[in-house]
Amino acid sequence: MNKKVVLKQRPIGEPKLEDFELFEEDIREPKDDEVSLKTIYMSLDPYMRGRMNDAKSYAKAVEIGEVMEAGTVSQVIKSKSKNFKEGDFVEGRTGWQDNPTVHENKLRLIDPSMAPLSTAIGVLGMPGTTAYVGMKNFAKPQSGETLVVSAASGAVGGTVGQIGKIHGCRVVGIAGSDEKCQFTKTEYGFDDCLNYKDTNFKENLKNSCPNGVDIYWENVGGISFDAVMPLFNDYARIPVCGLISYYNLKSLKLDGPDRIPLLFRQMLTKRLMYKGFIVFNHYDQRQESIEQLSSWIKDGKLKYKEDFIEGLENASKAFIGLLNGKNFGKLVVKLNDDPTN
Amino acid sequence: MNKKVVLKQRPIGEPKLEDFELFEEDIREPKDDEVSLKTIYMSLDPYMRGRMNDAKSYAKAVEIGEVMEAGTVSQVIKSKSKNFKEGDFVEGRTGWQDNPTVHENKLRLIDPSMAPLSTAIGVLGMPGTTAYVGMKNFAKPQSGETLVVSAASGAVGGTVGQIGKIHGCRVVGIAGSDEKCQFTKTEYGFDDCLNYKDTNFKENLKNSCPNGVDIYWENVGGISFDAVMPLFNDYARIPVCGLISYYNLKSLKLDGPDRIPLLFRQMLTKRLMYKGFIVFNHYDQRQESIEQLSSWIKDGKLKYKEDFIEGLENASKAFIGLLNGKNFGKLVVKLNDDPTN
Repeated sequence: MNKKVVLKQRPIGEPKLEDFELFEEDIREPKDDEVSLKTIYMSLDPYMRGRMNDAKSYAKAVEIGEVMEAGTVSQVIKSKSKNFKEGDFVEGRTGWQDNPTVHENKLRLIDPSMAPLSTAIGVLGMPGTTAYVGMKNFAKPQSGETLVVSAASGAVGGTVGQIGKIHGCRVVGIAGSDEKCQFTKTEYGFDDCLNYKDTNFKENLKNSCPNGVDIYWENVGGISFDAVMPLFNDYARIPVCGLISYYNLKSLKLDGPDRIPLLFRQMLTKRLMYKGFIVFNHYDQRQESIEQLSSWIKDGKLKYKEDFIEGLENASKAFIGLLNGKNFGKLVVKLNDDPTN
Repeated sequence: MNKKVVLKQRPIGEPKLEDFELFEEDIREPKDDEVSLKTIYMSLDPYMRGRMNDAKSYAKAVEIGEVMEAGTVSQVIKSKSKNFKEGDFVEGRTGWQDNPTVHENKLRLIDPSMAPLSTAIGVLGMPGTTAYVGMKNFAKPQSGETLVVSAASGAVGGTVGQIGKIHGCRVVGIAGSDEKCQFTKTEYGFDDCLNYKDTNFKENLKNSCPNGVDIYWENVGGISFDAVMPLFNDYARIPVCGLISYYNLKSLKLDGPDRIPLLFRQMLTKRLMYKGFIVFNHYDQRQESIEQLSSWIKDGKLKYKEDFIEGLENASKAFIGLLNGKNFGKLVVKLNDDPTN
């Protein structure tokens, strides 16, 4: 049987367990150019929250009753494809299900001797490539600059900060617990990391950036951005990669004065660049990214942390927790045993 | 005697005539490497409002009692410089005064046979170069795209729109009177131009951009931006060049709601780029800009309109009017007869 999680209803604000539904169905026989898969690892990422809304966005919304989207690592169990044979390991966007049958063009072969399988949806997958292409194309870190990254212990943020260190930046993270902050310093080599839940967070951040901020990597929005904004140096770059603190908002217009004039005046006088981007538009740089990140991992310059959850039936709860910062590192759901482990 | 206008007191909100003071002083004898000048044309530009504030900005504020800043075209009346001789025409940032004595390194020689002298502070000067470098480096217009430009009949906006036409864009201007709108269409060849004072302005703009907006050139902020924002296409570029509607604000925080989350979400999902810039950081492209703009003028592809005011004593009033959109084209104060005319 193929177990799958579908969108039962569109959440209003924070998703609830009742917004998801677990189904079982027969495994579909592959047609020509299709393969049947056994899902081993499934990625949970904040962007999925956007797909649950009906709003116009860069990607089509998940329809009610449709399987939830996700990147996965799987093993081929039956193949009618010339490109993949039984036993092959593949990465693809096959969704929240454990025995899907999909077209070969959704898949990419993985060599399990190169790195642990799960990294194909983590540091060597979408989140790692997000960090790589955003830093290369938009942040453009220079030695001696100060880089601030929000969601610093997360799948993207942790890699962003370490790329900053590789380029000689002072790297200051922002995260949601002292434990996460400590980890980015001792494991990832960040120069500093601040807990945004501290009452003195704004002041702490200012003190930790005595030369101002040249790059702010935006994963979060909200109070992280508010604390960084006054610290921008001339010519600062702000790659806007995610806005996790807004994803559960019922309205994107908040109480308080409208700060657009303030934002624009600073953008003009300090000559700032803000750039929203989505990794899927930069997959021409995916291979380059995987090679570079692998090489940094081999050299001990790049580390990563995975946060494993067991079982598809626990995915919705883990996803809700992810939106509240409950994960610690790249959140991965393990659906079946990893035969390479 | 040298007549000069100094900043008497810092304006709060809209500048008033009493914020300026006209003085007379003896013409200072040039020392080595200095020249004495007779100012012929003086430029009035919105950015000068920022210099009247004490706020930290990209350029030093004008001090109380100090001469107001401006770009000028002048003739050398006495020279102790090896680079300039009596009778030469020069452009420089010599301020609101009619017989200044300045160091030669503030000046650039102008060939009066190439173009009317006044263009050296207009279409072939700072405003023209602003349009050129912003379009080349940040807007990057592509044939078939839709470009919207605010302050469309102004010194920068008029040139921006025409560069857009040269690159094959649909060009839609925004201006503050039907007369200005008509002019950009008949003289500059804009496809359309809308009066932001019309009650149906937002709807008119939407109707005039049936394929959305790929480039928005921001000179103004406020209701122009609010009307364009919902129309952005994926990958739209927004060069932020000026914010004239905010310059007289007493606070940059307006009555709410706070739309920063809305702005950021759109920036992310539509992958927008916002870039503040100041022309003075791009003067390595000034010569290239002057050559390209001159060539377009010769070919009849680029037109310009100047709005002349006579007499330094009328400059403050004209400047206050400029901030309220009372000028029509590049605002130039004529201080002395133009001997080439």
